[in-house]
Amino acid sequence: MEFDTIAAISTPMGEGAIAIVRLSGNQAVEIADRVFKTPGGKRLMEQPSHTIHYGHLHEPKTGEIVEEVMLSLMKAPKTFTREDVVEINCHGGIVSVNRVLQLVLVNGARLAEPGEFTKRAFLNGRIDLSQAEAVMDLIRAKTDRAMNVALGQMDGKLSRLITDLRQALIETLAQVEVNIDYPEYDDVEEMTVPVLLEKCSWVRDEIEKLLQTSSQGKILREGLSTVILGRPNVGKSSLLNSLVQENKAIVTDIAGTTRDIIEEYVNVRGVPLRLVDTAGIRETEDIVERIGVERSRQVLKEADLILLVLNSAEELSIEDERLFETIQHMDYIVVVNKTDLERKIDLNRVYDLAGKSRVVATSLLKEEGVIELEEAIAALFFDGQVEQGDMTYVSNARHIALLNQARDVITDALDAAEAGVPVDMVQIDVTRTWEILGEIIGDTVQESLINQLFSQFCLGK
Amino acid sequence: MEFDTIAAISTPMGEGAIAIVRLSGNQAVEIADRVFKTPGGKRLMEQPSHTIHYGHLHEPKTGEIVEEVMLSLMKAPKTFTREDVVEINCHGGIVSVNRVLQLVLVNGARLAEPGEFTKRAFLNGRIDLSQAEAVMDLIRAKTDRAMNVALGQMDGKLSRLITDLRQALIETLAQVEVNIDYPEYDDVEEMTVPVLLEKCSWVRDEIEKLLQTSSQGKILREGLSTVILGRPNVGKSSLLNSLVQENKAIVTDIAGTTRDIIEEYVNVRGVPLRLVDTAGIRETEDIVERIGVERSRQVLKEADLILLVLNSAEELSIEDERLFETIQHMDYIVVVNKTDLERKIDLNRVYDLAGKSRVVATSLLKEEGVIELEEAIAALFFDGQVEQGDMTYVSNARHIALLNQARDVITDALDAAEAGVPVDMVQIDVTRTWEILGEIIGDTVQESLINQLFSQFCLGK
Repeated sequence: MEFDTIAAISTPMGEGAIAIVRLSGNQAVEIADRVFKTPGGKRLMEQPSHTIHYGHLHEPKTGEIVEEVMLSLMKAPKTFTREDVVEINCHGGIVSVNRVLQLVLVNGARLAEPGEFTKRAFLNGRIDLSQAEAVMDLIRAKTDRAMNVALGQMDGKLSRLITDLRQALIETLAQVEVNIDYPEYDDVEEMTVPVLLEKCSWVRDEIEKLLQTSSQGKILREGLSTVILGRPNVGKSSLLNSLVQENKAIVTDIAGTTRDIIEEYVNVRGVPLRLVDTAGIRETEDIVERIGVERSRQVLKEADLILLVLNSAEELSIEDERLFETIQHMDYIVVVNKTDLERKIDLNRVYDLAGKSRVVATSLLKEEGVIELEEAIAALFFDGQVEQGDMTYVSNARHIALLNQARDVITDALDAAEAGVPVDMVQIDVTRTWEILGEIIGDTVQESLINQLFSQFCLGK
Repeated sequence: MEFDTIAAISTPMGEGAIAIVRLSGNQAVEIADRVFKTPGGKRLMEQPSHTIHYGHLHEPKTGEIVEEVMLSLMKAPKTFTREDVVEINCHGGIVSVNRVLQLVLVNGARLAEPGEFTKRAFLNGRIDLSQAEAVMDLIRAKTDRAMNVALGQMDGKLSRLITDLRQALIETLAQVEVNIDYPEYDDVEEMTVPVLLEKCSWVRDEIEKLLQTSSQGKILREGLSTVILGRPNVGKSSLLNSLVQENKAIVTDIAGTTRDIIEEYVNVRGVPLRLVDTAGIRETEDIVERIGVERSRQVLKEADLILLVLNSAEELSIEDERLFETIQHMDYIVVVNKTDLERKIDLNRVYDLAGKSRVVATSLLKEEGVIELEEAIAALFFDGQVEQGDMTYVSNARHIALLNQARDVITDALDAAEAGVPVDMVQIDVTRTWEILGEIIGDTVQESLINQLFSQFCLGK
């Protein structure tokens, strides 16, 4: 396919040593040649592919120097997009990189939409849709494990599995078709149904297996939304700091001017915890009060994990009991803090209230119990299973939804076939399953969906 | 010189399309070869310089794939550091880039200190100290003008000027030396003093000219620390939003967990305003109350510019008058806001209190008066002079301090010479001036200072 030439800043915004403005398209080299001068007066057009050139960017009209840059020239087809690609490495300042981008935009490039480079890689057939989605997952990965899942998917692991399932379905359909079209014998049904049942059962089982990885896959991909709950002064802030200090925290400041919600990611034994509203905890030590009843309910509702902090040196209060009630149907761990002080809390009552949930004693002041807490968190969600490094995880919500659909439709097909429904009726459902699985890899998928998917990408990818 | 091989992440941290891990040193290529495999099994060692290679990073021991990367190979001496440089372009996620960095560190590289790449460029003689400092200024530039100043300095504009001045001084010293050593005539003083006076006056004048650019240069480089002041509900928050919306804001979140101070940069007609404590204004509409008397005094004291907001629809209050008093010796602009409402404020009194400071009427609600305010800000600090694009600005505090010193010492020399002090006494001061100017370009500078300077750089540069 042939597209216009796009450009975008491909490195994160901020102050850094290097920033990259990337160009892709037919005119990428021509545009670069227009604004780029090497000391020796080389023309990029005439340079071999996959070479690096030092020089200055100029305003073509005024000759004014815009930046000192290194330029990477990569000609089609061995590039990320399969088009001509030019990467301009400039000094990593915000003004600098914006200026470079402006220059190429004024000289013929169009500003790329989010994800448009990857979209071209997909449209030009270099990768399929699930691989394209993995590119973004890889960038957003919060732990090594999440990254490995994404790397595997990018490498085509999931694609190959889905392609195998679809192949099995299409072969079955072909066989059914043949038997229907040439019914030399009366026993078409007898001939066809066993094959169909066998193949479709196998496909359903494989889908089922994939779906079993999805809850863990989703946690790996998106992080475990975690809320630290408790009355004022029980040590919520200390717990937050312990978790953040022991693990590398990644602060995510949600865009917008209000800065209401600040999230921090910590990597607890490979489980990415997304600690919600950490600013609230730090600032006021009272999340519930600060964010208001309505909002706090919302935050709790969306949480995957609650860490309920109690004060060992005080008796259980009515508020504590109420908090237990609020979270009774959720996944939570009870943290009995301040064990360095004389115990006044009734542990029997705590264990009764906690039911099946884990109770961990900590003295955050003395840095005791944090390791146990981390182990409890990891055990709660992975139970040791995550170590099977070679598994293909499904982690993407879109894939999970499609796999669920596919499983339901093929189950219908199987039920119908067993109930003696005519084979040509059953094959409609089998065809539908084949289509649904195709949506995962982008084989049978609407343009609008593609546009919507790539719009969630970051700029410059 | 020969150094060990260093590595660092050279792109800003965050989610982006591409991140770069940069290696520099003798072993850069060898280390890269150890962890990098191309599909065709190429050895980097054997590849020509300034070429780009696609492949995967592997754990050498386990063979496990770590990342899919593009690798830029640049062999000495035509590189940023004049050493062998390898740049690994990986997917721009936080986990991904850290993993790549870990891999090269485990396989023989040392983590670079902040600024260590640029330091090597300096130590290996590719650039002088003022050029090295300009690299960082360029990255931190908040406006086009600031970037042009940095680009000029990086290109050696300031260096050449300083070198010329030093050359003049050394020639004068040589001549004085000759005259002293070979006093064939009695009138050594008569011969020498006029030359010395002429040359040293010229040097002093040039230094003086440079210093005259320094206050503007400093503002261009560091931004104008600006505080929006006023009673609650006069429209501080609206003013902040107007300034931020009309101009592209760059948020700088000062490191640390407390998030007490948030700064935003806006570019007002080329003047970078550093809006201090914008979070405070947004959250509470009352900066003074929120940050406490002591802190607010500190913030005011460090401000270059105050925007004092008054409410046109209310009479001047005692608090307003008190605010005028507090800032009477500072640069400020009075913003009389809410002109859409019926006026109750006594403008005569406002103008009396403002004295020479500008008063601008605004209706931020109706988006009126903001342009006038911006013009007033630009005029206050640049008075139209900034347009002389070709000037050499001194912007760096270290340079300014050294130039001030040099100016004082050479003035002493001139005074002494005129007062008839013996020439061999005067030449001590001239030599000292030559030394001080040398510190600017790093010719006569202590190692400890060099270390300290580069430590202020960002990582990976």
